[in-house]
Amino acid sequence: MNALIDQVRTYLLQLQAHITQAVTDIDGGTFVVDPWTKGPEEKLQGNGITKILEGGSVFERAGCGFSHVKGAQLPPSATQHRPELAGAPFEALGVSLVFHPRNPYVPTVHMNVRMIAASPGGEKAAPVAWFGGGLDLTPYYGFKEDAVHFHRTCHDALAPFGPTLHPRFKAWCDAYFCLKHRGEQRGVGGIFFDDFSELGLDTSLAMLQSVGNCFLPAYMPIVNQRAQTPYGEREREHQLYRRGRYVEFNLVWDRGTHFGLQSGGRTESILLSMPPLVTWSYQRQHAADSAEQRLLDYFLKPRDWLAEGV
Amino acid sequence: MNALIDQVRTYLLQLQAHITQAVTDIDGGTFVVDPWTKGPEEKLQGNGITKILEGGSVFERAGCGFSHVKGAQLPPSATQHRPELAGAPFEALGVSLVFHPRNPYVPTVHMNVRMIAASPGGEKAAPVAWFGGGLDLTPYYGFKEDAVHFHRTCHDALAPFGPTLHPRFKAWCDAYFCLKHRGEQRGVGGIFFDDFSELGLDTSLAMLQSVGNCFLPAYMPIVNQRAQTPYGEREREHQLYRRGRYVEFNLVWDRGTHFGLQSGGRTESILLSMPPLVTWSYQRQHAADSAEQRLLDYFLKPRDWLAEGV
Repeated sequence: MNALIDQVRTYLLQLQAHITQAVTDIDGGTFVVDPWTKGPEEKLQGNGITKILEGGSVFERAGCGFSHVKGAQLPPSATQHRPELAGAPFEALGVSLVFHPRNPYVPTVHMNVRMIAASPGGEKAAPVAWFGGGLDLTPYYGFKEDAVHFHRTCHDALAPFGPTLHPRFKAWCDAYFCLKHRGEQRGVGGIFFDDFSELGLDTSLAMLQSVGNCFLPAYMPIVNQRAQTPYGEREREHQLYRRGRYVEFNLVWDRGTHFGLQSGGRTESILLSMPPLVTWSYQRQHAADSAEQRLLDYFLKPRDWLAEGV
Repeated sequence: MNALIDQVRTYLLQLQAHITQAVTDIDGGTFVVDPWTKGPEEKLQGNGITKILEGGSVFERAGCGFSHVKGAQLPPSATQHRPELAGAPFEALGVSLVFHPRNPYVPTVHMNVRMIAASPGGEKAAPVAWFGGGLDLTPYYGFKEDAVHFHRTCHDALAPFGPTLHPRFKAWCDAYFCLKHRGEQRGVGGIFFDDFSELGLDTSLAMLQSVGNCFLPAYMPIVNQRAQTPYGEREREHQLYRRGRYVEFNLVWDRGTHFGLQSGGRTESILLSMPPLVTWSYQRQHAADSAEQRLLDYFLKPRDWLAEGV
């Protein structure tokens, strides 16, 4: 298993470095780099590198974490569909990021790529691995061309691996990033997948890397396009209010966040996803023909963005 | 059952009116009063009155809701300890409040009193009812005398019902209002109880009323004492940061909030508890001898406040 782990670890660390460098280039600010280890006295052993830029000119809070944890026995939740792996030692590696821009016209973005690998036959036997992750976009003011570009880039990253993946992962993303208590989508979606191994180890891993590699081309052109848009108090207030939805989704519905916090994960790394400044107010209403209402009525509904873009 | 429901409904509506009047008196602001009903097409029928004051001089966001819902069948979660009630029609009534003051020296407060009543023997038979609720205090800057006063008032409200209730409910509160992912208490505690009926219907209800009635004397003297304390940017920043903990507790750990949102409750009424403005920042540290650090080290640990006050 070690060769696989080394390969994925190297890829993920490079991905984290590329992405944070690209953010530094556009923002001018500096990431705090916080390497951490969880010792043998903890439930899970492991290490990670948390990188976070706070108070930047473009990004108000941009967190990008790498983590690599090892466990003696796969937890029951992970072996529900793989009873043959119950009790096997495992390792889980991933990169996860959420970027909260300052300008309300720049959307918030989330990306995660992860692998869980187990060695049920012992160290020398072939490892079993499965993959998960995706990326999704959360605008505060909607632009059709941004949504189309984001989805087109996700589509193209998956296309080499067969035509069925993108529609499946796109629908999975819409189903997952839904605030059921509001009847609202979190944003305009993207792709989401979990427990993925159906293409075999090598090709599934290649697909994961293709997803990770599409993050910068999917998101950065949108940042470049929108970051200089003038805005005032109205747009800022709307952004802070909508950020509350991001908090609600992550703390109430996101399985990774919820499970991580309840099972003794590293709180400050898990909560990299929280926005820097958030408001709640009671039953905020928007004018019928406003951009704010159009976000709700048009952009925050599951929609076939590739068809919209034709 | 109707006589019991009417009695409790009348009490709770008066309690809500008294409390919001007291807030209006001290704040000068006005509550928005939002009566609502859930129609027969919804899972639960019922009605309520949501009252909320936003942007007041003393309270930045103060929500106080009354709700009264009826269901055809008790859900399994409610009959775990009462299998004889499975499937019985029920009604649930309560008042719930969270007040977020503007001045960081004034603590946030939460109170809830509720009754669930079922009529397993039909409308004419004696109803079965049980009670829950409590109140707890969340300071941003700790004052021993405030914590002692709050706990003393809770103690005195329970004292007529026997000497064992306060220690039990105080410990229950400490156990419940704990952010396990942080290893922190939410605040300095208070009292918490659930599923309570052991004193019989009449006395248990009298106890609930005693708890509801102690809210104003427990909290308002603290508001009066602290609301004029001068503060600056440092205290404000600390308050906004600590409010993030309130959000984390309510969305991740609070069973009422979590269950309410996931089971189709009225979102905007459930989220009355959210603060108006909140920040998150990575691994915020306080100077070793600061008031902010003392909050963590001294006030946010379970503590026998009545003994501290001697």
